[in-house]
Amino acid sequence: MAIKTLGAKAAAALDQELMSTCAFSIDQLMELAGLSVSQAGGDGLVAARHLFYYGYKPSIFYPKRSKNELYQRLAKQLEDLDVPFVDDFQSAIASTDHVVDAIFGFSFSGEVREPFPAVIQALEETKLPVTSVDVPSSWDIEHGPPSSGLGSSFMPTALVSLTAPKPLVGHFDGRHFIGGRFVSPSMAKKYGFEIPEYQGVDQVVEVATGGEKL
Amino acid sequence: MAIKTLGAKAAAALDQELMSTCAFSIDQLMELAGLSVSQAGGDGLVAARHLFYYGYKPSIFYPKRSKNELYQRLAKQLEDLDVPFVDDFQSAIASTDHVVDAIFGFSFSGEVREPFPAVIQALEETKLPVTSVDVPSSWDIEHGPPSSGLGSSFMPTALVSLTAPKPLVGHFDGRHFIGGRFVSPSMAKKYGFEIPEYQGVDQVVEVATGGEKL
Repeated sequence: MAIKTLGAKAAAALDQELMSTCAFSIDQLMELAGLSVSQAGGDGLVAARHLFYYGYKPSIFYPKRSKNELYQRLAKQLEDLDVPFVDDFQSAIASTDHVVDAIFGFSFSGEVREPFPAVIQALEETKLPVTSVDVPSSWDIEHGPPSSGLGSSFMPTALVSLTAPKPLVGHFDGRHFIGGRFVSPSMAKKYGFEIPEYQGVDQVVEVATGGEKL
Repeated sequence: MAIKTLGAKAAAALDQELMSTCAFSIDQLMELAGLSVSQAGGDGLVAARHLFYYGYKPSIFYPKRSKNELYQRLAKQLEDLDVPFVDDFQSAIASTDHVVDAIFGFSFSGEVREPFPAVIQALEETKLPVTSVDVPSSWDIEHGPPSSGLGSSFMPTALVSLTAPKPLVGHFDGRHFIGGRFVSPSMAKKYGFEIPEYQGVDQVVEVATGGEKL
């Protein structure tokens, strides 16, 4: 079967609809999305907290702190666990065995701004496994990696697509997981994708690169 | 080892502190608590949603709708999944194979008011497995079941203690799970209980009635 994907506009519309029509709060969605990602390997602030509870020792590179109250609370929850926030990505990457790339979301487009060019370059050059969330950072949600220059050779080891794969998966060649076990059958139908067959209480499921269940 | 429990005041204080000092929102805590309960067998509104996604067919007895905006959203999320809300507990119990008792929380005390006396009686009389959340309904958080009358012979099959067992567990004789994998080590220390050893990505862990890990 051809994999069904959600384009940029549809992905943004689904997110909005989950919070309006479907009555989810951003707190709920963030918690469930982060939990999905933590079960596939890692992620941003919520995933780091769950990873801590799973027994890992995450550290966080978070150079541009959001003033959004939710993100401030998520950071506080990590500080309470003594999870370190690091300023230097290069030295942090030298002392870890896995990188979770949750830098940009699916609404990223255009230029990679400071201080992130050096981070994208480090992600391109590292031999460590990298798990990207939804869209590998510097990639375009529709067209995948930049055709040349910064980010053009960045290929994460694993990708966690939240709710549904985005069109970029056509350019992705690695382990592919789908997470976000909170989309109702009617919403999936409305947006034209299929909910994968999650097992048991899992919040993620691995699919073949083409989208078939493994 | 003697099981360490959280009394009524401490349990309420910990809940407050999770939302103030620890910066969790009620949406986050509800989501994680409901997820814990869904993994042990079931629960209230959040657990019912997760159980639906696990492939079960829950129905909800929810005679006193809260005007609280969060509860209204949680109910909407279930309605969107066509999860039925039933008015008649007796006929609902006749067509299910498991009951989740999430009627009263840990702040319950005093008399069981209408329409719940018939529900408590049905829970006492049913042969079905019943999983209670935190405090079996009609029980006192400190002293367990009423010494006589309604609820005095109610003994659920399983209990899911959220964050930490409450003193009533001294009166409980069944399968005991602990859930709520979001309490930091420093909070557990402050409140004088131990975080159980959760496995892998589990959100619950089964413990012996005395509190030892199985």
